[in-house]
Amino acid sequence: MNHMKGMQSILFGESPFLTSSGSVVGKKESEGPLGKKFDIASDDDLFGEQTWEAAESTMQTMACQLAMKKAGVMPEEIRYLFGGDLLRQGIATSMGVEELKIPMFGLFGACSTSGEAIALASMTVAGGYAEQVLAVTSSHFGSAEKEFRFPLGYANQRPLSASWTVTGSGAFLVGKKKSHVRIGGVTIGKIVDYGMKDSQNMGACMAPAACDTILQNLADFGYQTSDYDRIITGDLGYVGQTILFDLIRKNGEDIKENHMDCGMLIFDQKTQNTNAGGSGCGCAAATLSAYILPKLEKGEWKRILFVPTGALMSTVSYNEGESVPGIAHGIILEHC
Amino acid sequence: MNHMKGMQSILFGESPFLTSSGSVVGKKESEGPLGKKFDIASDDDLFGEQTWEAAESTMQTMACQLAMKKAGVMPEEIRYLFGGDLLRQGIATSMGVEELKIPMFGLFGACSTSGEAIALASMTVAGGYAEQVLAVTSSHFGSAEKEFRFPLGYANQRPLSASWTVTGSGAFLVGKKKSHVRIGGVTIGKIVDYGMKDSQNMGACMAPAACDTILQNLADFGYQTSDYDRIITGDLGYVGQTILFDLIRKNGEDIKENHMDCGMLIFDQKTQNTNAGGSGCGCAAATLSAYILPKLEKGEWKRILFVPTGALMSTVSYNEGESVPGIAHGIILEHC
Repeated sequence: MNHMKGMQSILFGESPFLTSSGSVVGKKESEGPLGKKFDIASDDDLFGEQTWEAAESTMQTMACQLAMKKAGVMPEEIRYLFGGDLLRQGIATSMGVEELKIPMFGLFGACSTSGEAIALASMTVAGGYAEQVLAVTSSHFGSAEKEFRFPLGYANQRPLSASWTVTGSGAFLVGKKKSHVRIGGVTIGKIVDYGMKDSQNMGACMAPAACDTILQNLADFGYQTSDYDRIITGDLGYVGQTILFDLIRKNGEDIKENHMDCGMLIFDQKTQNTNAGGSGCGCAAATLSAYILPKLEKGEWKRILFVPTGALMSTVSYNEGESVPGIAHGIILEHC
Repeated sequence: MNHMKGMQSILFGESPFLTSSGSVVGKKESEGPLGKKFDIASDDDLFGEQTWEAAESTMQTMACQLAMKKAGVMPEEIRYLFGGDLLRQGIATSMGVEELKIPMFGLFGACSTSGEAIALASMTVAGGYAEQVLAVTSSHFGSAEKEFRFPLGYANQRPLSASWTVTGSGAFLVGKKKSHVRIGGVTIGKIVDYGMKDSQNMGACMAPAACDTILQNLADFGYQTSDYDRIITGDLGYVGQTILFDLIRKNGEDIKENHMDCGMLIFDQKTQNTNAGGSGCGCAAATLSAYILPKLEKGEWKRILFVPTGALMSTVSYNEGESVPGIAHGIILEHC
């Protein structure tokens, strides 16, 4: 029996497992602190394609194929696929998963999409709807700059609060087959909007949502912050982390000791000129696959809260003067 | 117990119910054949807002509020919300549902999104994850023309194969509380791409996906076409319907007798200059709420297959010469 926990969370009766995963990144990511941990790091950010968008699609295909290959399963054994990206109309996913011919759900939760995908994937398996499903997300520096800011050729300046979109993709096989990482429960986030209108400071737009989801997760499950070896946000970066710490402290909690952020892990801020840190749908996904899951598999961490964070903006809305609302979803991952 | 049926379908152990719904449309829709059936038909396509995008968001908010009001429930009683639209990064949904403060899943399946949303909503309820959830989608002629074709002020010509994006939104409350319409099962579609590159002929891009999902639904559940009082596609329009009939016939089935298409129902092609018919995330949703559900509630129809169809295109991809892949999801709705 699955249980509704508190206001926003789900505790799985029979926890689904994170069976395997795959990570694919570009050149800059391969030069960062996690560079050697990714399954595939390409020197060619176009991945042999003609456009950034096609390159991003190719990364999704590769990440899915890696996750399947490691588990020894074929696409026809995967019942459903949950995927998304940052591009308009999720085109990287539509094009990237097309050839796999797996019945699919297209998702959009900005950079929180990996959390949304893993949440729905685990709900689908624990609900008895599938033996195994795939969750995949991606982002690409070239396609994201073109979509949200300026094409790379413009060489525009970037404020210190801006993050650097990760060129990467992570895919996850979620299923009933036992592995060493189980998905204990999920906390689905609501949209939190403090009225921020600076699309170049996404950390500040997302920090309130991360705070809301983390506190709700603790309340729903009756946990202390110390019940998690790590609380790992998606891509708040240096600016967002500071705000998150302040907001959490104002609510009487403290996560300074056990907080990490994928956006701060994936690049070396000092030598890589990535300003506030890494971001994008691929940032949290590739970091989960390459860095977080191995530690859970080995039992180095027993339980973590994975909280991908999203800034729900589009060029249409912020050019029309709208604020950038945030959202974050929480996934409880446990060693077993 | 929920059951996996065949390759792509789910049969619910305890069927969730479509408890209530709300429909909101603009002026042109109010002048069409279904005009008097919608809950709200506005003479002002801007719905009092400054932009088409804000107008579309407002329609989503109104549709959700209508569905909740009819069922006598407050937003805080809704556990999760599933929503989407056609705009880049689903901004109409992000802005439209923000004030409801319901934990949410952002979706993208082009015009098939209402099927995706109702499928995930019913899986969530039948999986024991929620007592009641909301599913909402929308489209707007002004925002869609700006996003995919030309701003309205350009007054561009439209080929006869082009469809007319419906200005409308439909919201659905899905829950455990008994009503006269239950969701018996769902068939999740896969991406089907015949290589069509004409973004102005979406019916042709989507018809192969509709055919694939309908045939898969019949195979998975062991049904004949005659087991459905109606098979109702989302927005294939006149061109897409012809192709669908041909494709279905080539597979040894015939649905001419009991097929309907929301895009053909919502406008009068002869007097409203809507060419191939209505389209958009709001087309199937508003038609389901205003026209289809009342017939199911009264028992005029006992069982129908609702098949929203989507053309997974973005301006980025078709400007880069890519094809427009299609997808369609099937929802079995039964009188009870």
